[in-house]
Amino acid sequence: MANKINVGVIGAGRIGKIHISNIVYYMPEARVKTVADANLTPEIEAWAKGLGIANVSKNADDILRDPEITVVLICSSTDTHADYIVKAARAGKNIFCEKPVDLTVEKVKAALAEVKKAGIRLQIGFNRRFDHNFAHIRELATAGSLGQVQLVKITSRDPAPPPLAYVKVSGGIFLDMTIHDFDMARFQAGSEVEEVFAAGAVLVDPEIGKAGDVDTAIITLKFANGALGVIDNSRKAVYGYDQRVEVFGSGGAAATENDAPSQVRLSDGSGVHADKPLYFFLERYKDAFVAEMKAFFQAIAAGTETPVTGNDGLMDLAIGLAAKKSLAEHRPVKVSEVL
Amino acid sequence: MANKINVGVIGAGRIGKIHISNIVYYMPEARVKTVADANLTPEIEAWAKGLGIANVSKNADDILRDPEITVVLICSSTDTHADYIVKAARAGKNIFCEKPVDLTVEKVKAALAEVKKAGIRLQIGFNRRFDHNFAHIRELATAGSLGQVQLVKITSRDPAPPPLAYVKVSGGIFLDMTIHDFDMARFQAGSEVEEVFAAGAVLVDPEIGKAGDVDTAIITLKFANGALGVIDNSRKAVYGYDQRVEVFGSGGAAATENDAPSQVRLSDGSGVHADKPLYFFLERYKDAFVAEMKAFFQAIAAGTETPVTGNDGLMDLAIGLAAKKSLAEHRPVKVSEVL
Amino acid sequence: MANKINVGVIGAGRIGKIHISNIVYYMPEARVKTVADANLTPEIEAWAKGLGIANVSKNADDILRDPEITVVLICSSTDTHADYIVKAARAGKNIFCEKPVDLTVEKVKAALAEVKKAGIRLQIGFNRRFDHNFAHIRELATAGSLGQVQLVKITSRDPAPPPLAYVKVSGGIFLDMTIHDFDMARFQAGSEVEEVFAAGAVLVDPEIGKAGDVDTAIITLKFANGALGVIDNSRKAVYGYDQRVEVFGSGGAAATENDAPSQVRLSDGSGVHADKPLYFFLERYKDAFVAEMKAFFQAIAAGTETPVTGNDGLMDLAIGLAAKKSLAEHRPVKVSEVL
Amino acid sequence: MANKINVGVIGAGRIGKIHISNIVYYMPEARVKTVADANLTPEIEAWAKGLGIANVSKNADDILRDPEITVVLICSSTDTHADYIVKAARAGKNIFCEKPVDLTVEKVKAALAEVKKAGIRLQIGFNRRFDHNFAHIRELATAGSLGQVQLVKITSRDPAPPPLAYVKVSGGIFLDMTIHDFDMARFQAGSEVEEVFAAGAVLVDPEIGKAGDVDTAIITLKFANGALGVIDNSRKAVYGYDQRVEVFGSGGAAATENDAPSQVRLSDGSGVHADKPLYFFLERYKDAFVAEMKAFFQAIAAGTETPVTGNDGLMDLAIGLAAKKSLAEHRPVKVSEVL
Repeated sequence: MANKINVGVIGAGRIGKIHISNIVYYMPEARVKTVADANLTPEIEAWAKGLGIANVSKNADDILRDPEITVVLICSSTDTHADYIVKAARAGKNIFCEKPVDLTVEKVKAALAEVKKAGIRLQIGFNRRFDHNFAHIRELATAGSLGQVQLVKITSRDPAPPPLAYVKVSGGIFLDMTIHDFDMARFQAGSEVEEVFAAGAVLVDPEIGKAGDVDTAIITLKFANGALGVIDNSRKAVYGYDQRVEVFGSGGAAATENDAPSQVRLSDGSGVHADKPLYFFLERYKDAFVAEMKAFFQAIAAGTETPVTGNDGLMDLAIGLAAKKSLAEHRPVKVSEVL
Repeated sequence: MANKINVGVIGAGRIGKIHISNIVYYMPEARVKTVADANLTPEIEAWAKGLGIANVSKNADDILRDPEITVVLICSSTDTHADYIVKAARAGKNIFCEKPVDLTVEKVKAALAEVKKAGIRLQIGFNRRFDHNFAHIRELATAGSLGQVQLVKITSRDPAPPPLAYVKVSGGIFLDMTIHDFDMARFQAGSEVEEVFAAGAVLVDPEIGKAGDVDTAIITLKFANGALGVIDNSRKAVYGYDQRVEVFGSGGAAATENDAPSQVRLSDGSGVHADKPLYFFLERYKDAFVAEMKAFFQAIAAGTETPVTGNDGLMDLAIGLAAKKSLAEHRPVKVSEVL
Repeated sequence: MANKINVGVIGAGRIGKIHISNIVYYMPEARVKTVADANLTPEIEAWAKGLGIANVSKNADDILRDPEITVVLICSSTDTHADYIVKAARAGKNIFCEKPVDLTVEKVKAALAEVKKAGIRLQIGFNRRFDHNFAHIRELATAGSLGQVQLVKITSRDPAPPPLAYVKVSGGIFLDMTIHDFDMARFQAGSEVEEVFAAGAVLVDPEIGKAGDVDTAIITLKFANGALGVIDNSRKAVYGYDQRVEVFGSGGAAATENDAPSQVRLSDGSGVHADKPLYFFLERYKDAFVAEMKAFFQAIAAGTETPVTGNDGLMDLAIGLAAKKSLAEHRPVKVSEVL
Repeated sequence: MANKINVGVIGAGRIGKIHISNIVYYMPEARVKTVADANLTPEIEAWAKGLGIANVSKNADDILRDPEITVVLICSSTDTHADYIVKAARAGKNIFCEKPVDLTVEKVKAALAEVKKAGIRLQIGFNRRFDHNFAHIRELATAGSLGQVQLVKITSRDPAPPPLAYVKVSGGIFLDMTIHDFDMARFQAGSEVEEVFAAGAVLVDPEIGKAGDVDTAIITLKFANGALGVIDNSRKAVYGYDQRVEVFGSGGAAATENDAPSQVRLSDGSGVHADKPLYFFLERYKDAFVAEMKAFFQAIAAGTETPVTGNDGLMDLAIGLAAKKSLAEHRPVKVSEVL
């Protein structure tokens, strides 16, 4: 395969490693040529070597300057995303960037402007659109099986809260957790969100409240097409990762349960018992991470728009900011207020 | 309602009381005029009076001789069924008789001959045909949704074995328990059973084995229409009454789970938990007992054949006897061998 | 049963007839002595006679003045509820009143004051608390299986919108439909609602919008105990009556699916198919209507508080009024603002 | 990884290719050094080259004689399995052999004798033991959650019959299809099968009957530990591959439904609809093929017995032959009769 796409990956943390492994194992159409990580460790080096990756570096420029590399994956920390997008775009690379692009609308807009100017492709890592269950619901909607979409309901609960240190810099629950659900809501509704009302509470851990955030929330959405949406979040579900979507329309409703390790039911003297859901996003979205990357390479190869664009990243951020504002000001907030 | 059907009930044990209550509460088209029980107790008398029943008696003749009574329910012990059928038929009464008609083919045939001669209607109490789930499977089959029926699978397990004293006189598992499943199999297949192979084991209680019976069994059936069937039985399922049917055909398969007290799912740290099935036949077939009686009165009123005829009772018995013979002789047995 | 409770029923419309039948068929501890309906028809008279009811009347006073009657069921039109409560309370009768008590807080408060003064018992007809699924969820919560309740989620969708004429006088969706869900939310949370935010849309029928109402809604609730709640409503689900509840807590979550006519799954070339939910409230809450009345008579007999008090009726109304205000003023509204 | 296990694969048909791909993509502990196929085509060569496999050959001896190769996968046609086992064993290679080992007891016994003499490891390709659902049921049983196993029920239906040409040489349904279920039955029961009774019918395709085989069957098993088992087979389920297992014991029952592409439920005017099961074994057992090979390499590395031994292959064959004899002679047959 002389025509393999040469890929450079910036950032070899947890999510970077997932993408690298997936490309090595599942995507014969691409080759990870270089991995750059500002905090390169011997462990990362050994791991990359074991996967047959030619180059590792502490310097992302080794990727950006390499003319053979046409695709860059940005998997570094959030505060570096926008800068790398700008640099990679100017270097003419197609870009896959993890979410969120940035925590400020200005920087996202600026980065997207560079992407546009460069004429390259950008995909944002909203992997859940590629989950087999959620994608199937969307297929049913686009096939007309649901009629006109009227309600989008999303349940999104984590098995355990992140470290407090993370909560303090993440931008809060709406930007580090619900942002995935905002993207899912827009994806399922097939429409932009116009208004947000967020109700929040601190029920899981008082320390989260002290850090200025909530850990439990219900967010109501109004879409441009007239539909309504609602998301409920919790930082801690004792039974594990709870990720469900329901779309209700004039012609029907589609809903999905969680995936579980097995379909087995045990009936005994105390009841009928089944497995808990798959524990967390690594297990639940294992295949979705592969599918998003395949879709990205497919779009690059075909020269078509990517399935999750920079504008998606911008709109999801804006909804998150509107939700924060709504919670702070205790009123419904138009997304246009923060854009 | 001057035209209420006057009903006499012979036998006020558990099943007799169920039918009496059901008629009183749910069937305005009928009236229980007389209840006769050879072992009439003050409790039964008080209970009947509380329901507004005019007459109680120790003598079934008070029913058989009453010209106002046109319908007789035979709910006495099995050994009296055939005799009462003969007497009631000769008295020109329509008859609902609990299963089984008798444990011998000869007595059943003789009783059915009298029924035929008298030109009255007879329904046998195979109530499970009227279960909402099983009836719906049959509806799907007769509507053509399953194509040609090829396999009938029945799971039938009791929550606990009956008293040993009962096991010793009941005719054994195939005649006291599986006979219901044989009826269900014929009902679902829409065909008679031609051959039976029974495998049995004593796994629940060694005392059952000492009494000459098995408590666990798998019975294979061949139907006249070419389909195959299989029933699995256990005298003891720790999770309660397990009553499931699956019909597989060239066009599809229909299967039913058990009914449970609620649809609630509890997700907690140890898994996802649901209710056990409804405990036993009184709970599971509560509505089926009402429906079978309503269907009986409907047939009487319309002058049509009853939905479960004397011939059904005969064939179900014959399969049971063939199953016993198969187990004893360790070979497949034709139903015609015992008829 | 000389000690039967003598019951008078005011209003023999659809819901009145349900209660009357249920008492006649299922509640030997009570007797419907008199039925009064201002629009008494020969059909009602015949129907009541068929059930063995002694008296029918056009005048509720025939009930209120009858010293033998100790229990009054108020099943007349909503605008008459409060007046009849006052009259029946002054006459010393125990009262079961259909929901809502009234559409204004003032009249409800006045009626409840009379109830208090008279020292009689009052139960409001929020039947859904007695649904086997919803009641089981609450049992799990009170048994501690869910830990601290954090989220209450209610899906409540009707199979078809009511006649426009009804929409115009009912007080709108929050008072004629969601009021049941407000009651369910308080019941499941075990706490009062403090604040409401309602989002609404007209997606089912533009005529409903012209009548000043919405037909699709998402309502967010804040409970006094810190929990959050959300209700989604639609006037029209093409697959039928959709009534689900989920309660999420620190120790687990309990959720229920809808009840359906059967548990049968049909697998064929196009997929796996199951029954739609039971069509509407008459089917879905058939047993709940019986259970609420049994619980009422039990409370009367035991001299204990009823399971759904006048205060419940007042609070549910207040939440409905707050929801209306929230929708109209496009802001979260404290329930205390309308009390 | 200097210590990679060098693997030679004999036979690059469908199943051979699956194993090769799985090793290349998922098993860094092993390397496919040589692929030999008597009918080597340019397509196979290109495919192997694309996967980075060093050598392709028409001659299995290129594998058997290569001292670097310590593991041989036998994926050629069934009639060559036993010979290759003998040769590979004599060459001191560890062996993974596809099922069945052979269609005659004699050849299997002879091959196993060579395996024993050589002291090498042999695993037979009964992949279903590694299915996440079936393995979980077995885990529940071995953990004691089911008590004493009393009944094992297996449903095993193919989406479509194989080509007639295959039916004619495969040894018939019991040896080409049910043999998997016999293995599953022994696996789940934790016991050997002592007696078999097979009932069969030709309901799918009369041509199958003309070829001397049946296409629909119910097979009853008696296990050495006293438990009973039953398998139902069909060559054609219109809804796809139906692979379910239920194990019932004194302490509880565990059962699994099929896996499906998604968990989505669509509710519309005609009912509630879900996906059909995954289409066939390639989809359903995708992960199980990986898991069986990983377990094989693990056993080789650890020097322990493989999870599916040559004796398993022998016993599964014997049950299949006993089932054939039972069908032909219309009687229960002891497995010892054919060993």
